Amino acid sequence: MSLSLRALPLTAERFAPFGDVIEASAAHKQVMNNARFERFRDLARVDMGDESGAWPSISIARSSTATEFPYRLDMLERHPNGSQAFMPLAHFRFVVVVAPAGESVEVEEIAAFVTNGKQGVNYHKGVWHMPMIALRSGQEFLIVDSAEESAICDEHYLGEPVLVEL
Amino acid sequence: MSLSLRALPLTAERFAPFGDVIEASAAHKQVMNNARFERFRDLARVDMGDESGAWPSISIARSSTATEFPYRLDMLERHPNGSQAFMPLAHFRFVVVVAPAGESVEVEEIAAFVTNGKQGVNYHKGVWHMPMIALRSGQEFLIVDSAEESAICDEHYLGEPVLVEL
Repeated sequence: MSLSLRALPLTAERFAPFGDVIEASAAHKQVMNNARFERFRDLARVDMGDESGAWPSISIARSSTATEFPYRLDMLERHPNGSQAFMPLAHFRFVVVVAPAGESVEVEEIAAFVTNGKQGVNYHKGVWHMPMIALRSGQEFLIVDSAEESAICDEHYLGEPVLVEL
Repeated sequence: MSLSLRALPLTAERFAPFGDVIEASAAHKQVMNNARFERFRDLARVDMGDESGAWPSISIARSSTATEFPYRLDMLERHPNGSQAFMPLAHFRFVVVVAPAGESVEVEEIAAFVTNGKQGVNYHKGVWHMPMIALRSGQEFLIVDSAEESAICDEHYLGEPVLVEL
C-alpha cells in the first residue's frame, strides 16, 4: 500500500523550512516610482552556494503535458549548489512536494503544498523537491536559479511511491 | 515643441544594445523533466557589478495607476551597479524607453518599445530607462535585480520632455 499525502494550501509559514513563497504580501509592501507602483521587495534571493563560476540566471519553462492527480511520486531531486525559484507567468495553481535538505529523504518528512494561483516558490539550496509538474499543458513559469556550466542535480528514488492528492 | 517618439514592437535584436528580452523563443528551447516541460534556458543573467555586498533578489511590483499615452517623459534612471529585469505576471503589454549606458543621455539615442504581452525585459547595468509605468492599474511584474543595502539609482532629467506614442 502506498503512502498518501494531501497537498495543503501553501503559506509562507508552512514553507519556511524549505524556501520562500513569492507573493505580494502586505508585510513586504513599499511604494516606488512616485507611488505609481507598490513594491514587495526582496521576497526571495538567489543562493549561488560556495562554488565559483555560478551565475544568477533567468529562464522560462513551459509544460508540455497535464499531470493528473492523485499523482504517483517516485523521485525527488535537489540542487546542492544553489536555490531555484519558480514563478507562474499567469494565474494558475501548481503543486510542490518537498523534503528537508539533507543527505537523504525521510518519507515521513515529505510535505505537499498547492499554491493559490498567484504564488511562486523559491527552493532553498539542497532542499529535496518533486521535479516540476503542471496541472495543464502550456503553463509557463519563470525560473530564477543559480546556473553553472555543468549543474549538479541529485535524484533520490523513494523505496515506495507516495500518492500525492490534491 | 516636444520631440515625439513612437514605441516600436520589442524584439531581441532591437533591444540588444540595452539588455535582454525574456521570452520563450525557439532559439533557446530544450526539454527538461523527461519531456514534461520545454525549457528556454538562461534568457537573462543578473549582473551584480563589481561592488561586494550585492545579492540577486526577487521582488514583485504592482501598478497603482494606469498611465495614458502619449506619455510625457521627462526623466530616465539607471542603476550603475547592476541589472534589473521586469517580467509581467500575466499577459499584458508594457512600454519601455531606454538610452545607452553612459554618463549622460543623448536625446537622439532614446528608443521606445512596446512588448507583445508575453515578453519581459532585462536592463543591463547602467542602461538608462524610464521608471516603470503600466497601461492599467493592478498589473504585476516580477523584478529580478541586484539588491544592495543602499542601492544607487541615478536620475537624468531631460532638457525638454519627450512625448512617447503608442
